[in-house]
Amino acid sequence: MNEPALIRAIARWAAARPDGDLIAGIGDDCAILRPRAGEDLLLTTDLAVEDVHFTRATHPPARVGWKCLARGLSDIAAMGGVPRFALLSIALAPWSGARELRAFYRGVKKLADRYGVSIIGGDITRSERFVCDAVVIGGVPRGRALRRDGARAGDGIYVSGPLGRAAASHWRAMPEPRIELGIELRRRFRATACMDLSDGLSLDLHRMMLASGVSAELRSAAIPLARGASVEQALHGGEDYELLCTLPPTARRDPRSGLALIGFVTEGPAGRVRLDGKSLKPGGWDPFRPPKS
Amino acid sequence: MNEPALIRAIARWAAARPDGDLIAGIGDDCAILRPRAGEDLLLTTDLAVEDVHFTRATHPPARVGWKCLARGLSDIAAMGGVPRFALLSIALAPWSGARELRAFYRGVKKLADRYGVSIIGGDITRSERFVCDAVVIGGVPRGRALRRDGARAGDGIYVSGPLGRAAASHWRAMPEPRIELGIELRRRFRATACMDLSDGLSLDLHRMMLASGVSAELRSAAIPLARGASVEQALHGGEDYELLCTLPPTARRDPRSGLALIGFVTEGPAGRVRLDGKSLKPGGWDPFRPPKS
Repeated sequence: MNEPALIRAIARWAAARPDGDLIAGIGDDCAILRPRAGEDLLLTTDLAVEDVHFTRATHPPARVGWKCLARGLSDIAAMGGVPRFALLSIALAPWSGARELRAFYRGVKKLADRYGVSIIGGDITRSERFVCDAVVIGGVPRGRALRRDGARAGDGIYVSGPLGRAAASHWRAMPEPRIELGIELRRRFRATACMDLSDGLSLDLHRMMLASGVSAELRSAAIPLARGASVEQALHGGEDYELLCTLPPTARRDPRSGLALIGFVTEGPAGRVRLDGKSLKPGGWDPFRPPKS
Repeated sequence: MNEPALIRAIARWAAARPDGDLIAGIGDDCAILRPRAGEDLLLTTDLAVEDVHFTRATHPPARVGWKCLARGLSDIAAMGGVPRFALLSIALAPWSGARELRAFYRGVKKLADRYGVSIIGGDITRSERFVCDAVVIGGVPRGRALRRDGARAGDGIYVSGPLGRAAASHWRAMPEPRIELGIELRRRFRATACMDLSDGLSLDLHRMMLASGVSAELRSAAIPLARGASVEQALHGGEDYELLCTLPPTARRDPRSGLALIGFVTEGPAGRVRLDGKSLKPGGWDPFRPPKS
C-alpha cells in the first residue's frame, strides 16, 4: 500500500466523524477542535520505540496499539482529566504492513472506544523499527487540573493499586489507565497532587516531592505488591500506570476507591524520599540505561 | 545524561513560561492550555525519521530541529491559522547526545521564536535512528479555518512561490512556513481551499481536487520554477512547503503576495488533474517508495 491508501484505510478503521467539539478529523492538513467553554485542555505525547518500549516477541501489534494509547490516557488520568482526542504518528518497520497496522489500530480502537476517545489525526511514515508517538488531548474544568506540585507536609501518600505488576510480568502486563479514579481524585477527594507511575515509585515520588518542595516517608509494609512482584520491583519497576497522589490529612477515602496509604508528606529537603526511615535512591526506568530484557 | 537531566536541560533551552493561554508547560504529566474564546484550535503532527526525511550528511542537528518544526508550522499556515504551541517527541540515536540535542533545540527555537511559538512539552527516549514527532497547535477564528475541500469550478489555482526548490537542492533547502500568507489568504483573499505542498504539486493538487470533488487544468508555462529546478521537480519533487490555494474568480490578488496563477478548477471527475490538456499522474513523495538519494 502507498501512503494515500494507508491513510484511507486508517480513516476507515479508526477515524472519528466530526461531531460536537470535533470540527474536522483525519483528511486535512490539521484537525480542527472547538474547545468547550469553561474548560482547560490537557496535552500529552508519548513516544514508543520497538526494542526500547516493547519487542515483537512480547507485544503483537494490537498490544502495541493498546499500550501506546494507554500511556497517554494515563497522563490525562493523572491530571484528573477526561480524555477526548488522540493523534497517532506511526513509522512502520519493514516487518509491518497493512495487516499489522490494522491489528495495531484494533488495539488502539478497543481502548479508545472504552473511554470515548476519538482518533482525529496523525502521520505515517516508515523506519527500521516500529515507532509510535501518541498525542492525547483531554479536558478538565478551568483551573482544576491535578498537578504534581501541590503536595503539602501532613498529606497522606496513596497509590491506586498493587505495584510491580509490569516488572513481575516481564513487561507483558497491559496497562489500564485510571481515568475514573483520576476524575474522582479531582472532584471528590480533593487530591493536592497527582501523577501516574510510569517510571517507578521511587523515581516518580521523588519527582513529585521535588516539584512540591517537600519530603516523603514511606512504609515498605504498606506498599501493595502485585502478584509475584518483589518490593524491589514495586519500588523501581516502572510501567505500572497506577496513580500516585497526595490527599489532605482530613481526606476520608472511600475503601472502594482502591487507594492504599503508603506514607506521609513531611517538611524536609525537596525531593527527599525515605523508606522505613532510610534514604531511598530514585531508581526507576530510564530509557538512557540499558534496555529491559 | 539521564532522562531527568535531559528534560531539565530542554526546559532551560526551549521551554516557555506559563503566560496568557499557557497555564503549564514542560514539567507535569500534561501541558495545560486555556483556549481563547471564539477560536477553533488546529492540531497537526509530523514524524521525521533519520535516513527517511533527512540524513546526517545533509542535515546537522540544528537543521533537523528547524525542519521538524517547519513541517508542522506549514500545516498551520495551510489552514490560515496562527501557530501557538509545539510539543516535540524525540528519540536520540546512538550518535546524538546532549550536545546534538542542544543544537537540535537551537534550530527549533530559532524558528519558534520567529513565529511566537511556545514549546510546551514532549517526550524523550532513544532509538537506533534519530526520530522527532512535532505536534503543533494553532488558533483560528471560529469556523474560519481554510480547508482543502472548498475549491469550486471557476476558481483560480495559485501557488505561493517557485516550486522544485527542495528537489533541486537535493533536499538541503530549509523550508520556510508561509504563516503570514496563510492568514492573508483567509482574511483578505477569501481563499476557497488551501493546503501546503509537502509531497509535490501533482499529488497534493490531486488530493485537493479529490476532497473538493472537482478537476484541475494546469498550464506548465505558468508554474514558477525555483532556480535550477526542472518542471519535473516542480511537479513531483515535494517538500517545497509553499501554499497551494484556490481563489474565487472575482479575487483580485495583490501582486506583492507572491501568488502565481497556475491553472483553473473545472467541473469533472473528482481528483483529476490535467497539465496542458493531458492527464497528470500524481507522482509526489511517498515514504513507502525507496528513499531519496
